[in-house]
Amino acid sequence: MKLYTYFRSSAAYRVRIALHLKGLEYEAVPVHLTRDGGEQRRPEYLALNPAGLVPALEDAGRVLTQSLAIIEYLDEIHPQAPLLPAQALDRARVREIAQMIGCDIHPINNLRVLQYLGREFAATEAQRNAWYRHWVELGLATVEARLAGDGHSGAFCHGDRPGLADCCLVPQVFNARRFDCDLSAMPTVRAIAARCEELEAFRRAAPAAQPDAE
Amino acid sequence: MKLYTYFRSSAAYRVRIALHLKGLEYEAVPVHLTRDGGEQRRPEYLALNPAGLVPALEDAGRVLTQSLAIIEYLDEIHPQAPLLPAQALDRARVREIAQMIGCDIHPINNLRVLQYLGREFAATEAQRNAWYRHWVELGLATVEARLAGDGHSGAFCHGDRPGLADCCLVPQVFNARRFDCDLSAMPTVRAIAARCEELEAFRRAAPAAQPDAE
Repeated sequence: MKLYTYFRSSAAYRVRIALHLKGLEYEAVPVHLTRDGGEQRRPEYLALNPAGLVPALEDAGRVLTQSLAIIEYLDEIHPQAPLLPAQALDRARVREIAQMIGCDIHPINNLRVLQYLGREFAATEAQRNAWYRHWVELGLATVEARLAGDGHSGAFCHGDRPGLADCCLVPQVFNARRFDCDLSAMPTVRAIAARCEELEAFRRAAPAAQPDAE
Repeated sequence: MKLYTYFRSSAAYRVRIALHLKGLEYEAVPVHLTRDGGEQRRPEYLALNPAGLVPALEDAGRVLTQSLAIIEYLDEIHPQAPLLPAQALDRARVREIAQMIGCDIHPINNLRVLQYLGREFAATEAQRNAWYRHWVELGLATVEARLAGDGHSGAFCHGDRPGLADCCLVPQVFNARRFDCDLSAMPTVRAIAARCEELEAFRRAAPAAQPDAE
């Protein structure tokens, strides 16, 4: 398997966590998102992934994109260390938490959106940072509300093993810290992220541990 | 089952299509997104769904949110008219197309984001519409690139029966038309959407067919 990745991309980070949780070997192909106008916009990369986003996974002669779809695929073909629980209602809960992050926070704060704000609205760096923090804080407060005091939460987002929701939570918390977001009202989110970050799989997937880290 | 819905919400529209494709009965509970500052922000609704977004589905004593998670749940517990193919690589392809829309287009154009642009950047209506069209046209061009000339595409996004990707595509095309987006370069997207819209399930799920339609 080949993973097209960028050390700081939180969508790629999610997939790296899943790969390491399952103990799968892969070749990392770095795609630098800001050098020379962005390597993800080169024709060679666009031929693989017309969206011009990372990650992309090459496996079995096909190229898959979209981090949540890639993780579900890995979970279906490599059943060890399952990332989704067995029961449908529980699976829905885990996907829900993953999508609160993967749909309702991350895409709004993606690099191309911040670039549009600068280009079309002359947004200053302070305004772009305020935008970033707004969607992270709003979104993670929602995640906190879903996790806190819910008997389905455990040491991790769902029960006592890390799964799909944790693959999404940790990169988002990493980004939240990078942009100095206020997570003081989100003790459950912080505790789960801290617990994950102690695990080898999460450590190996972290931005600083990547070959393309700067 | 109770579906908290708004006739024009494209995320609720996706779930309505899935329910009708499977022939499932449900009670529609309208949540008006703009009346009185938005019924989705009322304490009663936030108690059900802390994200303050539609849709939410009440089933088996639990409340599920996030349209894609809800549709996967329905597909798992009601196997008739499956919305995902059987093979893992194909399932990944369908989820990928669904997420190209559900992650990379829709959330960036959500009402709350347009409201932020108006509030914080004094964006005019023309600027908000340009923003909307930008993300729709960019995102649907990516979907077109994935669909066109790919042997896995058929009468519908994947093969010859409508599924999860079509549940996402049709509401997005509906919104694209509403905001006068340019879909001239997306013949495959348009042809599939038109084919879907002829089906009873899609017609019954359409905004104009809802009890709360205006």
